[in-house]
Amino acid sequence: MSRDPAPGELTLHGYWRSSAAYRVRIALNLKGLAYQQAPVHLVKDGGQQHAAAYQALNPQGLVPLLVDGDVAIPQSLAILEYLEETRPQPALLPADPVARAQVRALALHVACDIHPLNNLRVLKYLADPLGVDEAARNAWYRHWVETGLASVEQGLAAFDGHFSLGDRPGYLEACLIPQLYNARRFDCSLDGCPRLLDLASRCEALEAFAQAAPEVQPDAQ
Amino acid sequence: MSRDPAPGELTLHGYWRSSAAYRVRIALNLKGLAYQQAPVHLVKDGGQQHAAAYQALNPQGLVPLLVDGDVAIPQSLAILEYLEETRPQPALLPADPVARAQVRALALHVACDIHPLNNLRVLKYLADPLGVDEAARNAWYRHWVETGLASVEQGLAAFDGHFSLGDRPGYLEACLIPQLYNARRFDCSLDGCPRLLDLASRCEALEAFAQAAPEVQPDAQ
Repeated sequence: MSRDPAPGELTLHGYWRSSAAYRVRIALNLKGLAYQQAPVHLVKDGGQQHAAAYQALNPQGLVPLLVDGDVAIPQSLAILEYLEETRPQPALLPADPVARAQVRALALHVACDIHPLNNLRVLKYLADPLGVDEAARNAWYRHWVETGLASVEQGLAAFDGHFSLGDRPGYLEACLIPQLYNARRFDCSLDGCPRLLDLASRCEALEAFAQAAPEVQPDAQ
Repeated sequence: MSRDPAPGELTLHGYWRSSAAYRVRIALNLKGLAYQQAPVHLVKDGGQQHAAAYQALNPQGLVPLLVDGDVAIPQSLAILEYLEETRPQPALLPADPVARAQVRALALHVACDIHPLNNLRVLKYLADPLGVDEAARNAWYRHWVETGLASVEQGLAAFDGHFSLGDRPGYLEACLIPQLYNARRFDCSLDGCPRLLDLASRCEALEAFAQAAPEVQPDAQ
């Protein structure tokens, strides 16, 4: 988990089912960047993200973390921006500032308003100490996903029939597809999301997405 | 709330106590940009963010929203990036990609891992339907703030005695100060955060922060 990578070599510390790590895997694949994986099991050993060796690398105690030579960068969206600035081609974001803002606003809606509420650590806190039972936890999960994806769906009208970069996916799809994966895993209703489902089916046909899928990661169980 | 601004004129749709709107007010002030305010009361009228006129501008149904001429941008961090790209001077982010990533990672830790859990809509859901009582809701609030700020504090070691841009604050401080405001409002323990408190005291002495404070906004009650 804490081996030192050679300078300039990319190592992704993540967990197969972490949707934030999944975003970064897609982004690395879209940019055609080779990377090693250093799995951090979020449940085993009381959560390996709390281990001293990992905390020394990432005091935030969360995944993902990208190590680039001697630089360690936490937070999936900070990693996407860093990759875009240090390995600009192929771009993940459109060139126009307004189009970039539209993409970031939709990605941040997923990253700030949907995903954090359904993180493993949050679901655990709902169970204990709050004593919320499994049915109510699942309803909580679906509530935030369904509310959030309904407005994502409206935002996707700008991209009807296309990807966020016209003929290819990027930053936006790297955030949307992992959230859709979670939505399906928890049986959220996607009836109101035909644009999202159409975009997803086109993404999922691409190698960059297929190879980033949770089930094909080395630490998948 | 929905008046049309003149082209190129900036209008911030926000709420005095929204810490995401507070981030944008600080950023606008740091860049010396004039802007109008269009208050969206998050409680009155069942939440004015749900009104049809506001939803037409922002289908995400959240504040803040920045309107720049005929462009509407939701999500505070998308707004900060947009301002940085369209009005680059004075910069909110450092120039070096690694330093930019460090700043964004700390800001995103606040924006993704602390703030969303303590949003008004989340606290309301905890109360109803989950039936979590006020004491347990306050403990929830403090848990996420204290856990998150403890790791932010470690990340601030890189800036000891300085601002994130050396001699002046920027993107990082625009995200930290509103979170600290919330922490104080909910009596969170800040004993482990001397760096944050030192940085905050230097920010709060500056006009850009003083004029962005919730209590001096036109809609403050």
